[in-house]
Amino acid sequence: MSLASLDTPAALIDVARMTRNIERMQRRLDALGVRFRPHVKTTKCGQVVRAQITAGAQGITVSTLKEAEQFFAMGISDIVYAVGMVPSKLKQALALRRRGCGLKIVADSLYCANAIAAFGREHGETFEVWIEVDVDGHRSGIPPEDDLLIAVGRALADCGMTLGGVLAHAGSSYEYNTHADLVRIAEQERERTVRAAERLRAAGLPCPVVSIGSTPTALSAERLEGVTEVRAGVYVMFDLVMHNVGVCETSDIALSVLTTVIGHQEEKGWAIVDAGWMAMSRDRGTQRQPHDFGYGLVCSEDGEPLGDYVMSSANQEHGIVSRAGATDRDIAARFPIGTRLRILPNHACATGAQHPEYHALNEDGSVETWPRFYGW
Amino acid sequence: MSLASLDTPAALIDVARMTRNIERMQRRLDALGVRFRPHVKTTKCGQVVRAQITAGAQGITVSTLKEAEQFFAMGISDIVYAVGMVPSKLKQALALRRRGCGLKIVADSLYCANAIAAFGREHGETFEVWIEVDVDGHRSGIPPEDDLLIAVGRALADCGMTLGGVLAHAGSSYEYNTHADLVRIAEQERERTVRAAERLRAAGLPCPVVSIGSTPTALSAERLEGVTEVRAGVYVMFDLVMHNVGVCETSDIALSVLTTVIGHQEEKGWAIVDAGWMAMSRDRGTQRQPHDFGYGLVCSEDGEPLGDYVMSSANQEHGIVSRAGATDRDIAARFPIGTRLRILPNHACATGAQHPEYHALNEDGSVETWPRFYGW
Repeated sequence: MSLASLDTPAALIDVARMTRNIERMQRRLDALGVRFRPHVKTTKCGQVVRAQITAGAQGITVSTLKEAEQFFAMGISDIVYAVGMVPSKLKQALALRRRGCGLKIVADSLYCANAIAAFGREHGETFEVWIEVDVDGHRSGIPPEDDLLIAVGRALADCGMTLGGVLAHAGSSYEYNTHADLVRIAEQERERTVRAAERLRAAGLPCPVVSIGSTPTALSAERLEGVTEVRAGVYVMFDLVMHNVGVCETSDIALSVLTTVIGHQEEKGWAIVDAGWMAMSRDRGTQRQPHDFGYGLVCSEDGEPLGDYVMSSANQEHGIVSRAGATDRDIAARFPIGTRLRILPNHACATGAQHPEYHALNEDGSVETWPRFYGW
Repeated sequence: MSLASLDTPAALIDVARMTRNIERMQRRLDALGVRFRPHVKTTKCGQVVRAQITAGAQGITVSTLKEAEQFFAMGISDIVYAVGMVPSKLKQALALRRRGCGLKIVADSLYCANAIAAFGREHGETFEVWIEVDVDGHRSGIPPEDDLLIAVGRALADCGMTLGGVLAHAGSSYEYNTHADLVRIAEQERERTVRAAERLRAAGLPCPVVSIGSTPTALSAERLEGVTEVRAGVYVMFDLVMHNVGVCETSDIALSVLTTVIGHQEEKGWAIVDAGWMAMSRDRGTQRQPHDFGYGLVCSEDGEPLGDYVMSSANQEHGIVSRAGATDRDIAARFPIGTRLRILPNHACATGAQHPEYHALNEDGSVETWPRFYGW
C-alpha cells in the first residue's frame, strides 16, 4: 500500500512526526524525573500505544472502561480510568480487576467513595482509588483545601480500599497561548495537586501517587517536585488547537485527513472536497482562538501547508476549501478536480474518532492500516 | 433488555416517535404525488431503513459508496450516491453496478461527465448519471440557467451514458425559521430544479427524474408539480436544529443520549455527566440559531424535557449540565449522582455517527440493539 493507492477520505498518520512527538514528551518527562502515563483516548489504537510504551511510558490513562478492556487484552495492566466512577460501572471495573487488570478508579465525592467501598467489601475486592483534585475550576475534582478531600480519603481507607493517590488535569491550559501563562498554569497544577497529597498525608492517609497533566502543561512545566507521574494525550498527534496554544508547529502535526477535490464554485473561490465533517469531526476548537482554521488547514498531498487555504465550511461528506481573507477565483486551476489534499485537524482526538482505522505513512513511503475502536 | 439495564452513555431511539416521523413524511409526499427516497446517511442502520421502505419509500439516497455497498447487501438496489462522482471512485461504483446494484451517480462538471463517460465506455458499462443543480448557492451543482448544464448533459448522452435526471438539495433551508420562508425556499428549490429539467428536455436530452429535497423543504412545500421524487434524511429522527427551524417539536425528536450523573460543582450549578462530546458529537448547530441548546437539551430518563437544563459544555467523556440563564445551586439535590438523563441532540446525523449501535426503545419498554456502521 502507498499514499497514492488510498481511497479518500482517509485518516493519515505521519509516523516520523508521531515518533518525534512521542520521543519529545518522553525525554522531557524523563529529564524532569517523573513517570509518564499517556492518555490513550486520543488514538484508541494499539500500534500507537505500543510505540508510546516502547519509548518509555509506564501505564496508560483511559477515558472509558472499553479502552481499559481493549488495552488490557493487548497486555497492558497498569491502567487508570480517569473519569469519576459511578456505582453503575463498578461491576465492569470489578470484572477487569478479577481478570488481573491493575485498574485504578477515580472518585471526587463522598457518595461515590462510599459506594465504591461498599461494593468492594461486598465482593471482597480491594479497589485502588485515586482522588480527583480540582486545580483550576475547569471541570471535576475536589479543591485541595476542601475538607471533603480528607473525608473522601478516610471513607476509602477506613473501609479497606487502597487510597492510591491524587489526580488532576489542568484543562484550563487549553485557554492560553503564551509560554509564560502555560508555565504559570503548569506550576499551579503541580502546586495544588502536591498540596492535596500533603494534606492527605498530614491526616495520616497514604498518597503514593501524585498524577497531573495535560499536553500544554506537560510541555511547559519547569519543575515537578512532589509529582510522581504526568498524563497527556493529544501530544502524540498534536493538532491546530495545540498549535494555537503554542506547544507545537504545524510541521509537528502527525494526523491529517486525505481528501480529493470533487468540484468547484469558481466565483466564490471554493473547491469542494470529499471530506466533510464526518471525516474531520464537527470540532471547531480554533474558533475562539487567535487563529481560526475553520475545519482544518489545507496541505498538499505530501503534507506541505499551502498558505492560507482552510476548510472553511463542512457538510456531512462535503468540505469547502477556500482561501482565508481573499477569494481565490483561480481555485479551479490551482486545485483541479481529482487533486488530493491533506487537511490538518483542529482536534486530533475528535477527528480520529470519526475513522475506523488510521493509515500509517512510513518514511519509506509504505502505508500500514492501524485499526482503532470506538464506542463504550 | 430494558432502559434500566443499559450502560451509559448510550444512543436511544424512541421507536414510536421514529415511526410517527416516518409516517408523517411518507403521508405528506404521497399526498403531493411524488416518490420518496430517504437519505440514509442520518442513521446508517438497517432496521431504520427497513422501516422507511416498509412505509412506502422507493429507493434510498446515500452519502458514501460504503453506504451503497451495505444497503445493497441488505437487498436495496435503487440507490443514488448524492455526492459528486470523481474518477478515483468509478472503479468502486462499477463493481457495485456489476453486482446488479442500480446505482445512480451524480456529476456537476464537464470534467467529471467526460471522465464517467470515458470510464464507462472503456469498461462497457452504461452508468446512470444525474446532474446536480444549484438552487441556492449553498454548495455544489450547476445553476439551472447555465449553459454548462446542457454541455454536461450532452457529454453524457452523446457517449452512451444514461442521463437519468437532475438532483438538487436546498441546503440553505436550514438557515430559516418561519413557515413563510420555508415555503418560499421549497418553491425555489422546486422551480429551479424543474427549470433545469425543462432546459435539458428542450435541448433534446432525456430527463426522467426530477429529484429535490431537504427535511425543511420536504415538510414545507405546498406544491411539487414537475418533481418526481423527494429526498430527506434527518426527518426520521429530527433534532434541536430542526426544532429551531420550526419543522418539529422536541416531542418529535426520536434520538437521545442516555447518560448518568457522575458528580457536581454545586457553586457553579453544574452536574457532571458521563456523556461528553464523544457521545453527543461536537456539533453546535444551534449556536447560531435563535435558541442555543449548547450540546443538547436535558430530559428525564423517560424522555420528558426538564425545563431550561442543557448540556452547556462538553469534554471528551464529560458533559456539564446546567440551567440556562440562572445558576441552579440546588443541582446536586435535583440530579443526585447516579441520576440518569436523556439528552436531545443538536444534530441527529452527527450524534448517531458517534455510536456503534442504537438502542431501540419500543413502546412496551423492551429494548433492541440496532447496529449502525461508519467509515468509508
